[in-house]
Amino acid sequence: LSDSDSPLRPVRRPRRQRRKPRNPNPEARQRLLDAGRELVFEVGVPELRVEEVASRAGLAVGTFYLYFEGKTDLFVQLVMEHTQLLRDRLREAYASEGSWGARTVRALDAYLEFLEENRMGFLYFRDASGIETTEGRLGTWAFRQHAEDLRAVFEQGIDAGELRNVDANLAAQAVLGLMQHMAGWWLEQDPRPPRREMTAFLSRLVAEGLRA
Amino acid sequence: LSDSDSPLRPVRRPRRQRRKPRNPNPEARQRLLDAGRELVFEVGVPELRVEEVASRAGLAVGTFYLYFEGKTDLFVQLVMEHTQLLRDRLREAYASEGSWGARTVRALDAYLEFLEENRMGFLYFRDASGIETTEGRLGTWAFRQHAEDLRAVFEQGIDAGELRNVDANLAAQAVLGLMQHMAGWWLEQDPRPPRREMTAFLSRLVAEGLRA
Repeated sequence: LSDSDSPLRPVRRPRRQRRKPRNPNPEARQRLLDAGRELVFEVGVPELRVEEVASRAGLAVGTFYLYFEGKTDLFVQLVMEHTQLLRDRLREAYASEGSWGARTVRALDAYLEFLEENRMGFLYFRDASGIETTEGRLGTWAFRQHAEDLRAVFEQGIDAGELRNVDANLAAQAVLGLMQHMAGWWLEQDPRPPRREMTAFLSRLVAEGLRA
Repeated sequence: LSDSDSPLRPVRRPRRQRRKPRNPNPEARQRLLDAGRELVFEVGVPELRVEEVASRAGLAVGTFYLYFEGKTDLFVQLVMEHTQLLRDRLREAYASEGSWGARTVRALDAYLEFLEENRMGFLYFRDASGIETTEGRLGTWAFRQHAEDLRAVFEQGIDAGELRNVDANLAAQAVLGLMQHMAGWWLEQDPRPPRREMTAFLSRLVAEGLRA
């Protein structure tokens, strides 16, 4: 979605009116996103400064405002980008070989692995999921994206007789809610329990909780 | 906790320095909390004005600042009050008659019922759970309170051989995370599915997911 013509935007009115670039340069936009991601991980969203993002990307502040409406917009675009990256990883696990149970273990482990790699970004996203965007609440939007994929996996499991006949959308929301909370809890622990222990606990809870 | 001498406070520096009241009047504090709760439900936290809270409580703005450091502090005190009210309801369900499974159904239903009654307050709390308080992140604090109670219930279930031998604290966090997400999802649906359907789905997921 990062090169979509109509990405999600925060609803809050921008301080400056964004001029659409005459010759959009995807490479400049990506450099700004990369610099923004680095700075979110280093200093956090509250301390993020547009000037610093532009400077780290080696671009002028005016160029920043050709691609983003401001700091919140940049953050929303980063969440969109990460949602897509995480979806890709999860889809790979969903499409892998083996039983429904084996694929679930792989998907839950891929989820925790991705969030561990992007720890700071995830923790800020969690606390910013109330941002209102053109597609509604940011957190609700992200859950809907993932639920769409997981719902299909659950429907296959029900058809195959491996899962009991639950509402697949409800089950997808339940598992995603469980995973998001437990990932946040886990990433805040010090020392952090090994990922394999979390995956084992959560995949058994899900498998037993939903089996036929 | 509402009459504790040292309630949770937001970390953000107050605009005005709060003077401690010479003769604290619990009734005035409670009137301000009640007015604040009404206004949170009516207009939401972003639109909440200290002047309006004081006026609705029939008190001067100066009196407000004897008891609260500002709007965020009032909101944190409301969350503390609600956490305690919800804990009381859940403890009643935990202590009720019947098997572990029957008590779980009652507790999950009591949770959804409480959040349905306090819908607006809950939805604002969810999006404000990143507020930093003197006891850490507000949402993390609230989960810790509930997890303490639920952990004991799970330990009983494990001792009674009704639950498999899981880490009771991990299981408590998992069930609370699942419930918080599903409550938020449910409260945003239009039309909203009947509460008994949600309770039935969630209590079966939990009971099957954790049984011995």
